[in-house]
Amino acid sequence: MSLLVLGTVAFDTIETPFGKAERIIGGAGTYVAWASSHFYKNIKLVSVVGDDFPSDELTALENRGVNLEGLDIRKGEKSFFWAGRYHNNMNSRDTLATELNVLENYAPVLPESTKKVDYLMLGNFAPAVQKSVLDQLTERPKLVVMDTMNFWMDIAMDELKTVISDVDVLTINDEEARQLSGEYALVKAAEVILKMGPTHLIIKKGEHGALLFHQEGMFYVPALPLEEVFDPTGAGDSFAGGFVGYLAQTDDFSFENMKRALVYGSVVASFCVEKFGPNKLKSIDDEAIKARTNEFLKLMDISMPVSC
Amino acid sequence: MSLLVLGTVAFDTIETPFGKAERIIGGAGTYVAWASSHFYKNIKLVSVVGDDFPSDELTALENRGVNLEGLDIRKGEKSFFWAGRYHNNMNSRDTLATELNVLENYAPVLPESTKKVDYLMLGNFAPAVQKSVLDQLTERPKLVVMDTMNFWMDIAMDELKTVISDVDVLTINDEEARQLSGEYALVKAAEVILKMGPTHLIIKKGEHGALLFHQEGMFYVPALPLEEVFDPTGAGDSFAGGFVGYLAQTDDFSFENMKRALVYGSVVASFCVEKFGPNKLKSIDDEAIKARTNEFLKLMDISMPVSC
Repeated sequence: MSLLVLGTVAFDTIETPFGKAERIIGGAGTYVAWASSHFYKNIKLVSVVGDDFPSDELTALENRGVNLEGLDIRKGEKSFFWAGRYHNNMNSRDTLATELNVLENYAPVLPESTKKVDYLMLGNFAPAVQKSVLDQLTERPKLVVMDTMNFWMDIAMDELKTVISDVDVLTINDEEARQLSGEYALVKAAEVILKMGPTHLIIKKGEHGALLFHQEGMFYVPALPLEEVFDPTGAGDSFAGGFVGYLAQTDDFSFENMKRALVYGSVVASFCVEKFGPNKLKSIDDEAIKARTNEFLKLMDISMPVSC
Repeated sequence: MSLLVLGTVAFDTIETPFGKAERIIGGAGTYVAWASSHFYKNIKLVSVVGDDFPSDELTALENRGVNLEGLDIRKGEKSFFWAGRYHNNMNSRDTLATELNVLENYAPVLPESTKKVDYLMLGNFAPAVQKSVLDQLTERPKLVVMDTMNFWMDIAMDELKTVISDVDVLTINDEEARQLSGEYALVKAAEVILKMGPTHLIIKKGEHGALLFHQEGMFYVPALPLEEVFDPTGAGDSFAGGFVGYLAQTDDFSFENMKRALVYGSVVASFCVEKFGPNKLKSIDDEAIKARTNEFLKLMDISMPVSC
């Protein structure tokens, strides 16, 4: 039993109203791997870095049980770099720099050991790369979760839709759901998107929580109101990582269990934003996750007779 | 046992991406009265209109059990008029016209029969008017709920804070909570505001739901994702009306019951936005409210073992 994670491993320079962090560790693959490692131990990461990427960061991932056989370390090349600045509301940001570097002509080659997996998390990457990973698998995984972003909708919508048609769960934000479906109301957007292939759609709304859509119904998980939101980078990836990690742990894809996975995704994301980069994700333990899960359950707890 | 409602009764002209409605019935007092009438029958409305206000609208309210002894009908004067246009996202709007008319020099005079009430809803109005109603009561009600808006924070913050210091529950939106407290994070904003007097703070987030803050904890109620949001006008007032109406019906101000009241507030608000003006609020019955409450409970339903 194993979980294959595809996603960028990168350097980020991040400015928020609270400070600036230069060339820290980032990338969707990094966040997904750290987040899911709190729930599941047999993780394989597929990605690419240059030889400028610090080896102790890779060792730290391996020590968490993340297998790096599928990580392509390119000699003489530089890792992907992104720089961004968050606005005061922390809900929107400007991209200041994007240096593709090793990503420019990346075509993943899966090691034999990663060609048969039970769970697959296609983290944000070019749709062609996501499709290539799917195509190299010798058997379809029991569960395929996919994250993407508006950037790919702008430049590669057709390829993107091809990948979407082949996944079980799609996670995007509200604006992306509107762009992908052409519908403004999220209920209608979900109807359209669920016809594209996925059985489950998760619409992430940042500080406003997330919605799960499935033919059995809708479920809403709030974001935990926090004293400090320090750096929203990676929150969506951490959410996806907690979500897929819990599903891999429990191997139960019922609607009821998907709802629980959504709560754990929110729990992990709530930690992620409390420090720059994945630092907080690295420092939390099971006790911290349990305590915060209890905070979520209190926030959502309601018992009422249906009468008026 | 009775519920006193203060709030404007007015004409609104509303433009949304879906159409335009000219000089329809509006005002905070109207929405609160209709919304709370679904939960509680002994309601007294304090407000002012001109003699241009249609008498059949007043009769409809009376038929719902709303006592209008405290409604000042000014001969030869015109009712308050507001015109606004909603942006495409329906979450923000521009004010196109505000004609105060009868509101210009309104100083409410409570009839003897409304000077002793159990529950008081101070709907959005000038803080001086809200204070005047509080001051005329011969006994403090068991529960005082207050709504207000950024407009009063801009021009009458000191008077506003005086009223806030004397209420049990304050309902405002997220931007208003930030403006009132000077804190960006809602958890911190709530800490500051709860020191101003209220024991409960409700932060309304429109399509993103609402948060209840109290020393016993936080509670989050989502907004129901809807196929069509036709007109957001009055949603916040309907929310407050459903909330206070349920509390008046149950006469139970425990944190657990406040949470239930929050759900009913959201239920009523979800109906409000489905048609122009208070039309939908007028047409729903107990069965519709029960059915929609069930939809909310499904949206929020989670059962999970706290483990990871």
